[in-house]
Amino acid sequence: MATNAPTRVKKLFNKVEDIVPESLAGLAAAHPDIVTIDAANNVVLRAGGPTPGKVGLISGGGSGHEPLHGGFVGFGMLDAAAAGNVFTSPVPDQMEAATRAVDGGAGVLHIVKNYTGDVLNFQMAAELVAGEIEVASVVTNDDVAVQDSLYTAGRRGVGVTVLVEKIAGAAAEAGKSLADVTATAVKVNGQGRSMGLALSSCIVPAAGTPTFELGDDEVEVGIGIHGEPGRRREKLASVDEMAEWLVSPIVSDLGLGRGDTVLAFVNGMGGTPLIELYVAFNSVARILGGQGIAIGRSLVGNYITSLEMAGFSVTLLKLDEELIRLWDAPVHTAALRWGA
Amino acid sequence: MATNAPTRVKKLFNKVEDIVPESLAGLAAAHPDIVTIDAANNVVLRAGGPTPGKVGLISGGGSGHEPLHGGFVGFGMLDAAAAGNVFTSPVPDQMEAATRAVDGGAGVLHIVKNYTGDVLNFQMAAELVAGEIEVASVVTNDDVAVQDSLYTAGRRGVGVTVLVEKIAGAAAEAGKSLADVTATAVKVNGQGRSMGLALSSCIVPAAGTPTFELGDDEVEVGIGIHGEPGRRREKLASVDEMAEWLVSPIVSDLGLGRGDTVLAFVNGMGGTPLIELYVAFNSVARILGGQGIAIGRSLVGNYITSLEMAGFSVTLLKLDEELIRLWDAPVHTAALRWGA
Repeated sequence: MATNAPTRVKKLFNKVEDIVPESLAGLAAAHPDIVTIDAANNVVLRAGGPTPGKVGLISGGGSGHEPLHGGFVGFGMLDAAAAGNVFTSPVPDQMEAATRAVDGGAGVLHIVKNYTGDVLNFQMAAELVAGEIEVASVVTNDDVAVQDSLYTAGRRGVGVTVLVEKIAGAAAEAGKSLADVTATAVKVNGQGRSMGLALSSCIVPAAGTPTFELGDDEVEVGIGIHGEPGRRREKLASVDEMAEWLVSPIVSDLGLGRGDTVLAFVNGMGGTPLIELYVAFNSVARILGGQGIAIGRSLVGNYITSLEMAGFSVTLLKLDEELIRLWDAPVHTAALRWGA
Repeated sequence: MATNAPTRVKKLFNKVEDIVPESLAGLAAAHPDIVTIDAANNVVLRAGGPTPGKVGLISGGGSGHEPLHGGFVGFGMLDAAAAGNVFTSPVPDQMEAATRAVDGGAGVLHIVKNYTGDVLNFQMAAELVAGEIEVASVVTNDDVAVQDSLYTAGRRGVGVTVLVEKIAGAAAEAGKSLADVTATAVKVNGQGRSMGLALSSCIVPAAGTPTFELGDDEVEVGIGIHGEPGRRREKLASVDEMAEWLVSPIVSDLGLGRGDTVLAFVNGMGGTPLIELYVAFNSVARILGGQGIAIGRSLVGNYITSLEMAGFSVTLLKLDEELIRLWDAPVHTAALRWGA
């Protein structure tokens, strides 16, 4: 029996080609009050259909980064998410189906992580509905680690995407226009930066072997969410030192200083225990505190992952009263929920 | 430099002995509105102190199972959690400090996972406050995998502990008496059962090597949350088969059948990506559906973990209207939050 063969990668699945659809089916089975699935297109849709007069928000991308994006579909956040295969962009038809499904007459915002395939395919989807649905687009590109990379021209879109989805989602829920929601999304992307590091690689199920090799005492600093190479390899160090490697470039890039208030987001790559993520948050808080930068809001956990990769990323978003109000607004999704 | 030595285990920490206190400090730094830390005792306390007239709920145990228990301190759930070293019971002084800190005059309930050390140390803590604070205790023992084990006489307390903390927490928040809150906790433990399996081991930081060895094609069925041996070793199989190995003994032990409604909880052990946990949930939902057992509520994610162990556990709780109402009641903790 194939599933018992010793070469089968040690993961939870039936057939490797069914991982994405069965995972989406599981999401809907667990949260029928929040989402439904367009199984023909592997699109996660908000239960209850589009809200008339509300700007529709969609995102999407390769799978393997859960809860991003399907776990963020629901009240106060996304209206739909298109799921590609693991680490593979969805095709334009999927984004088109998502766009059509969420249109409530007020236009649709595409939230796109800056990877070449995602950007092209979302553009094509927008062209496919041109003249029928007004589409705006924001491309997140918050990763300060590298300028270009394996899958990207310009900076990669990583952790800030979660914050854009939450905050723009709140603006859309409040009845803002497509132009206003887009402006809010652009603002969050502009005021947020991220950088990550990996302690281990990850295994794409269909590949069956680790995406890259890393020595027992090595850390990939500036890692991408698909295991793309970062800035440099370093020897493993204390978490205080490693947090400094991530926080310093972000603080410098954003020009943060004494008196600023940030949302501090320590994200797990999937395989690092929560006890360690809070140790890392403690380091980040100490570093920011030492520079007179206040933490106004925070988020700690696995929100944009790379399968079971061990490691963490830091995202800092410069806050103001508007962003705090939108961050605090009620949200009800599978992975992020409060006030509802 | 010691932290750069190649033998250092590849985890996020400064000094191994500071992992627990620094993780607790990180929890408080991230969620100052929810918790404070009694750093002298490694106890997580609800911010704002005890609520006069409310039954105080405390739990605790070895660390390494995060977010259990500190992530469940807050409105509608626990008032305090005592954190031992990784996979090591807290000492009685810690439970005593927690008990004294949360006493609001209506008594204190100890929620104790059934491990010999935890049970003894919570008992001693209760004796230390005898005559001063009324203490009741509920011991969770929901794991159907094994009768006795390495650290346990009788069944182990695992996933149902999360549900007891939520549901008894809601009862306490509603102003119920110590006797009533205790009865609710006992009821949840009695109507809930669990079983888990591991695809990989985990590394206790102070040990630096895997807790146990598992072949590339092997699964430990009935694993304990400290890596204690389970019922048997099996060859890796499809997730449908593996879910069946866990669901069948639970359904049988609870005597579930057509017409019953359950809370279905698919818990990650820490190192399994969320995409796979939802695939597993899909299998569980299919199995239950085939037997006419309805899923009334669900929970999917890493809630009671074994560091970075790969694998999952299933907990089923037989629901009635009272339990649904208490489950749905508002909760505001670091790891579980809704309606608040």
